Amino acid sequence: MATPFEIDFPRLQADIEALSQIGRREDMGLYRMAFSDGDMAGREWLAGRIEDAGLELYVDGAANVHARLGWDGERPSVMMGSHADTVPGAGHLDGALGVLVALECVRCFKDHDIPLRFPLEAVSFTDEEGRFGGMFGSQALCGFLTPEKIHQARDLDGIGIAEAMQARGLNAMDALRAARRPETIHAFLELHIEQGPVLDRHGVGIGVVDGIAGLFKWDVRLIGAANHAGTTPMTMRRDAFQGLAEFAMEITRILEEHGSPASVATVGRAQLFPGAANVVPGTVEFSLEVRDTDPRVLSQLNDACRRTLSTIARRRDLMFEFEVLSELEPVHCDKGLIETIAETAEQLGMEALRMPSGAAHDTQMLARLTRAGMIFVPSKEGRSHSPAEWTDWEDIQRGANLALQVLHRLAAE
Amino acid sequence: MATPFEIDFPRLQADIEALSQIGRREDMGLYRMAFSDGDMAGREWLAGRIEDAGLELYVDGAANVHARLGWDGERPSVMMGSHADTVPGAGHLDGALGVLVALECVRCFKDHDIPLRFPLEAVSFTDEEGRFGGMFGSQALCGFLTPEKIHQARDLDGIGIAEAMQARGLNAMDALRAARRPETIHAFLELHIEQGPVLDRHGVGIGVVDGIAGLFKWDVRLIGAANHAGTTPMTMRRDAFQGLAEFAMEITRILEEHGSPASVATVGRAQLFPGAANVVPGTVEFSLEVRDTDPRVLSQLNDACRRTLSTIARRRDLMFEFEVLSELEPVHCDKGLIETIAETAEQLGMEALRMPSGAAHDTQMLARLTRAGMIFVPSKEGRSHSPAEWTDWEDIQRGANLALQVLHRLAAE
Repeated sequence: MATPFEIDFPRLQADIEALSQIGRREDMGLYRMAFSDGDMAGREWLAGRIEDAGLELYVDGAANVHARLGWDGERPSVMMGSHADTVPGAGHLDGALGVLVALECVRCFKDHDIPLRFPLEAVSFTDEEGRFGGMFGSQALCGFLTPEKIHQARDLDGIGIAEAMQARGLNAMDALRAARRPETIHAFLELHIEQGPVLDRHGVGIGVVDGIAGLFKWDVRLIGAANHAGTTPMTMRRDAFQGLAEFAMEITRILEEHGSPASVATVGRAQLFPGAANVVPGTVEFSLEVRDTDPRVLSQLNDACRRTLSTIARRRDLMFEFEVLSELEPVHCDKGLIETIAETAEQLGMEALRMPSGAAHDTQMLARLTRAGMIFVPSKEGRSHSPAEWTDWEDIQRGANLALQVLHRLAAE
Repeated sequence: MATPFEIDFPRLQADIEALSQIGRREDMGLYRMAFSDGDMAGREWLAGRIEDAGLELYVDGAANVHARLGWDGERPSVMMGSHADTVPGAGHLDGALGVLVALECVRCFKDHDIPLRFPLEAVSFTDEEGRFGGMFGSQALCGFLTPEKIHQARDLDGIGIAEAMQARGLNAMDALRAARRPETIHAFLELHIEQGPVLDRHGVGIGVVDGIAGLFKWDVRLIGAANHAGTTPMTMRRDAFQGLAEFAMEITRILEEHGSPASVATVGRAQLFPGAANVVPGTVEFSLEVRDTDPRVLSQLNDACRRTLSTIARRRDLMFEFEVLSELEPVHCDKGLIETIAETAEQLGMEALRMPSGAAHDTQMLARLTRAGMIFVPSKEGRSHSPAEWTDWEDIQRGANLALQVLHRLAAE
């Protein structure tokens, strides 16, 4: 080979910088929520880049943007992608990096004229971040949408996705036609920033994701009695907040006894009623969110949390109620693909860490349809969903070259 | 004696029922906040009852309403009283009971023509409950007000007490002239509902208050780092709420090691930031209120809370800040008067419990001016500041007769 088979880093860098200006609000980060003006401008820019590269532009019924190489409608494709939409006030890498690396990789295959066993598709999925609930595009592609789900998908202002797409000349019901049969996809790869501190803390450049955590999220209520904080002796109280505090202190034990090293549990929201300094809190409402990559572990943690809360409530004479807000099954990345990524990294002399993904990704959908794998690159100090989000350029270059070689293994003759 | 020297219970009952209709809002309890329409109507009714009884009506510069018997401007008086104002949505007994029992007692002395060593005064104090900060009338009478304090006293809507009094034809600065020299009061007695569950729980009809708890109230802030609840491993978190939970669980130990049986400590308010189920709380702000009747104990508890919070913050890599919202010195009731009340109860065959008052009362001011004592009657289930507030009629009758006999010991020849 005259030139080594590597990504064109300046070209990738230029793309990242160009897309990072689209939907930007001065000092407040990016606003490319699905079907917003920013998102539409991003889509237009991306389509232009695909055409500039001489790749086949294809937009499916869910408005997922595909860049295809060697597509013949017969052989299954090797697909790589992520999302270009953002949360409000986002950084420039969450999602966008995976889309642009996928595009760059496909471009490299074309530039180097690599003979393909399978066609390549770089994809940018619609509404991963959840203006209308999240992972709309990847759910559509995997055939998980129903007319009812489309009908119910609304943003915080009550605007339906059908309405939002219609305003852009699109028909949301077409998303049902975006569904791909499993045999049309040979494998799926996603590169994403970690959004957590692990790689950065360990000084390791590559994360090989072995699974994406599932979760359960509860809205818990403990009810005791609100009383005068001055006149109610400690022994005559039914202090709901003390019940929560005791439970929060049990979380470590619950994770140690019933969890895995990947388990996390969080009380992120809590409200005390009546919520005055001189009144013993009669009621507390709080969120409990627990994640793990193993469904059996998650189920054990579910039992343990319920049991611990019941016990605390009984002992403290409190009422205990909870409502399940959501439950998501964990998914495993494909064992073969995990090995391929890890081996390739080793051959390239890249230090890599096997790790779970605590955050949700489009891969969560694709893994239920086909063999799927995921590469993480470090997030500085774990910062995410913030304009302060950052990954060093050399980490980006390293991750992109790893993705390129993994695709080569999967798709080249 | 032809008729026994006892209160006229039907007359007292009729007064309690009459005043309980003034300022009432259907199903929502009483609204007699200081200088509100309800309060003014209550004052007018009270003045009428004092004149009906043939007692001398005197309204001082702080708008405290006095019913005087045998007043000669020379001998010190034996004073008994409480307040007729209420919190919004109040029950019918908090404050009002003490005013009406005081009035009834003075009426009995007059009806029975008891020769007096000291004149008697039944007093209803202005704004005990705190529309404008609390204990305005008793502070004025004790000479603790200053022009600046009067100027700064505002309600939650920003209305100053001067403005509110002017609207009723009163001059707030006259409150400075309500100050009594200590030698003009021989002793002060207050009867009040307990507002706590202790007497009700023990089935005891009389509480002899030995002191009124002081307190310190802090606004505490713990600051860690807000992070993604899915991607941040437990060991890499700086979860501010976990810091609060640990502190809340240490409260029992702190009270056991450094407190007295009367000590109470309460976290009644807490706010988590950003306060989302999927974000590790980076900051928590909460109230800490600690009460005890002994200033040394209170100071030890202050040290212990500060030390515990510092230690937790240091270990968990959190920042710890606090602001003192208020500090009130405990006050002791007069030892002699405590004995007089306890002995009188015993002679009358009434079971009595010596106990602290966790709530603040006008007695807190009077105890700094003169010998002061307080009688509690039971609150059903400790309910207070609520239309559900209740004390059995027989408990009211018992408490009123005890007060009458205590006044007899203090004031009769």
